[in-house]
Formats: sequence, structure tokens, C-alpha cells
Amino acid sequence: MARLVVTRTLRFGDCDPSGVAYFPSYLNILCGVTEEFWQRIGHSWNAQLAGRGIGTPTVHLACDFVAPSTYGDELSFTVSIGRLGRSSLELRHEITCGDERRWSAKQILALVHFGSRRKPLPWPDDIRTALQHFMESPDA
Amino acid sequence: MARLVVTRTLRFGDCDPSGVAYFPSYLNILCGVTEEFWQRIGHSWNAQLAGRGIGTPTVHLACDFVAPSTYGDELSFTVSIGRLGRSSLELRHEITCGDERRWSAKQILALVHFGSRRKPLPWPDDIRTALQHFMESPDA
Amino acid sequence: MARLVVTRTLRFGDCDPSGVAYFPSYLNILCGVTEEFWQRIGHSWNAQLAGRGIGTPTVHLACDFVAPSTYGDELSFTVSIGRLGRSSLELRHEITCGDERRWSAKQILALVHFGSRRKPLPWPDDIRTALQHFMESPDA
Amino acid sequence: MARLVVTRTLRFGDCDPSGVAYFPSYLNILCGVTEEFWQRIGHSWNAQLAGRGIGTPTVHLACDFVAPSTYGDELSFTVSIGRLGRSSLELRHEITCGDERRWSAKQILALVHFGSRRKPLPWPDDIRTALQHFMESPDA
Repeated sequence: MARLVVTRTLRFGDCDPSGVAYFPSYLNILCGVTEEFWQRIGHSWNAQLAGRGIGTPTVHLACDFVAPSTYGDELSFTVSIGRLGRSSLELRHEITCGDERRWSAKQILALVHFGSRRKPLPWPDDIRTALQHFMESPDA
Repeated sequence: MARLVVTRTLRFGDCDPSGVAYFPSYLNILCGVTEEFWQRIGHSWNAQLAGRGIGTPTVHLACDFVAPSTYGDELSFTVSIGRLGRSSLELRHEITCGDERRWSAKQILALVHFGSRRKPLPWPDDIRTALQHFMESPDA
Repeated sequence: MARLVVTRTLRFGDCDPSGVAYFPSYLNILCGVTEEFWQRIGHSWNAQLAGRGIGTPTVHLACDFVAPSTYGDELSFTVSIGRLGRSSLELRHEITCGDERRWSAKQILALVHFGSRRKPLPWPDDIRTALQHFMESPDA
Repeated sequence: MARLVVTRTLRFGDCDPSGVAYFPSYLNILCGVTEEFWQRIGHSWNAQLAGRGIGTPTVHLACDFVAPSTYGDELSFTVSIGRLGRSSLELRHEITCGDERRWSAKQILALVHFGSRRKPLPWPDDIRTALQHFMESPDA
């Protein structure tokens, strides 16, 4: 199954007075990685929101923080699709620094239409096809 | 069981271009609520870190985002203790706006000593006693 | 001249690995204070944006950071109006902790209409009157 | 005079409900650019703080926000040295998107020793030399 791997350097402002990553900053970075995932899929949040009035907000999130990161660390975010539902998508994130596992996350997104009070929506064919194509393509 | 209830107004900067709360901002707010929990317990992060070189980083986090919030919303954060372990603490967060449930979170913290490469540590007696006292006290 | 004074406790997540306030977090807090200023004036950003499609983005900002703050500090933000222009507003912010001056900021906002590519707009009579009323009222 | 040019894509989470960049997020990005400046100079904040107990906090900041940015914009941050003082450094930032100027900032940093209550310190020879070398080198 395909994976998207993106690198992020942990910045000074992402760390707290104990010297390690502040977890809400971690999730801010993760949110940017998910944004990049959609861009690679060919359906950026920009195109979703501005073009069709739809979006893919996060409805569930579970994280395990295994080992601390300090600023300057080069973190690898590996994103894969855990499950593609009728109107939901489960993303799996593995975050490592070199050989060390730092944290992981399971993120479930739901497709909604912003106009209709965020009612869940089945994936349009083009987005579903793009997600399946990503799942079936070989690793980058 | 005791609960701590704190109110936070969702701010403009906490919301995203789709008009609702950006979830990493939600977690930044939650982190401040947890900080206030420790202060009420009588063992602020300040006292923990500066005074004893210890801290209580988050090792696990699971969130369900049920309904969106828009800026200006008055959110109630209700914190209770799910489980007090030997060197861990499970906090339960319920976030509502008026009668509506917006999201909830389970957050597991572990006590660590920063000097010893963040090795887990059993709760010191005074902190354990303060946490038990919170659990057994009537609702505020 | 009237002043609005609001208190903010500096949080753990607002501080950086050197142990003091991260200046972008300072400005995030200041932005929330400005939001509260508009609320007290009777013209919240909510009412401006949702109600009339207008807003008051920051066009100029100048800050002097005089002394560092550490987390847990109770900061007083004092806001006053420096100058009320035809379509602009200069706010003065003084930030202290007890008797100590920590930082100050001059923030110039401009009224814009979001529909018309953010063209500057003269203050509507009701907002101008509310701002003048604030300037002329005695200190709270 | 040399310039450092770095590119940053404006992310979803950097924008606010009016659809454009939230200025504190702009400054968070700028802070990361300054961090990268020090890295290129050969004296990262990491090396400064961990290695010598020194740092270069921002003591003054002045920004002009000229035109709004929307998320997805590819922003170019151009950093140059305005003035090198005895224990201070003025950085000039120009932020553009394509041909359009979006905002600019003047940022004054001061060298301090964290141990001695952040007393200003003259630049050590190696850092001063590195800064002068940057100023005199041709554009990258």
C-alpha cells in the first residue's frame, strides 16, 4: 500500500519549557501533513472548500506519544490509508526520527457539505477513485 | 466524583477558513485546562518542573469531535479523573456549549523525571493524596 | 481616556524551550484581547463579519519586548485608543506583570469590506460613535 | 548584500474565519525563518542555547501588512541584515507571493546570557564574524 512520507523539522516555537515538543504543536504539524496528503491526492482542501463547498474535518483522533522530540529534530511523517468508508477516511500516521519511533496517530476524517450544516456525504466518484488509486499504488 | 469545570470562549484565532474550530487549537485550549487542573490540585506544572524536575507529559490522547464550534462560542470544559495508576493518570474531558456536546477527550499523563531521560516515576505521596482527594470530593 | 484592562495567565504552551514567552504566542494572546475590545465596544468581530461582511484586520504592528515573562505569570493587558482615523484605528497595548512593564504594542487596524477585495471603508456611524464613546468615557 | 530566501506554503491552520492569514500565525512562520537564518549562519538556536547558554530573543518588531494572503499561497521570505550592533542585530524581512508584496517586518534581536538574568552581551567573535560574512557575501 502506498505511503506518503514528508519531513518536518521540529521548530523552537513547537517546543515547550520542558524542552520537548508541545503536543498541540505536533497536531498542528500533523494537520499540515494531512493537508499535503490531500494535495498529493489531487483534491486539496482549497479545491474542496472553494470549489465545491465540501470539506473533510477530523471526527476522531487517537495518538500515542512514545518518545519525546527536541527542537531541531528532523521528523518523518508517514501517512497511509487505514480504511476508506462510504463517507469517511481513516489515516494512519507514523512519526519517526531516524530509526526511533516518536509517536503515531489514527485520524478519521468525514466528508461534509458546509452548506447543509455539515451533514456527512458519500465520497464523490473522483475523490473515491483518487483515494483508491493512492491505496493501490506502489510506495513512493 | 469531583469535576473541574472551566469556561473558555472560542476565539477568532482558534477557528479556520471553514469558520469552525481548528482541532489543534482545541487541543491547545485543552492543554491549558489540564494545566489549570494541576493548579487546582495544588501541584502546578510550574511547581512540578521548577521545584522537583518532574512533569506529567501526555502519553495517549483520544478525541471524538461530535459537533463543530464557531468563534464566540462559550465552551464548558469538564475534567474528571478516569483512573489513577501507579505513575499515570487518565483524565476525561467533556466539552459542551450550552446543552450541546461538542467533543470529548481521554488524556493519559505519565509522571516522569526530566533528569533521568523521562523515566516513568511512581506518584509521590503528596501528589497521589491530592489526586485522590480530588476524586473523592463532592462536585464543585 | 478610557482603558480596557484584561488579565491573562501566561500558559505553559505559550512559552518556549528557553523558559519564557514565545513572542508569536504573545501576539496570539494580544489578538484575543483586541477581539475582547471589540466585544466591549459592542461590535464584536462576529457581528462585523457575519452581520455586515466587514472586518478590521491589522495593517501595522510595532512591539517592544522589555522584560521576559515566564509561565504562570499573571499579565495585565491595558488597551486604549491612540488615534481614530477615517477608516483606521490605532490601539495602544501596555502589558505588565504586577508593577513590571513587560512589553507594549501599537496596533493599527483598518476597516475593510471583505466582499470588495478588502477595500478600506470609512467607519459606519454606529461604530465610530461607539469608539468615541469609549475614548471619552472615564476609566473602568 | 546577501539575502536568505526561504519559501513557505501558507497552511489551512494559519488562516482565520475571514479566509486570510491570521497575523500571529504569520509571526510564528517568521520566527521559524529567523531560526533557519541562524542555522545558515552556522549558529543555530540549538547550538546557542544548549552549547553556550545564550540566545537571541526579539526585543523589537515592526510589521506592515500590505495585502492579504490566502491558504495555499506560496510565500517567499527574504531575510537580510539591516544593522549589526554591538550586541544586537536588525533583520529585515520581505514577504512576497509571486510579484506581489504581502508584508514586511523589521526585527531587532539582542544577544543575552540566560544564566545572568538575560543581560545583553556583546557578540562573541565567531558569531560576529559569521554575521559579517553573511552581509558581505554575494546573493545566494
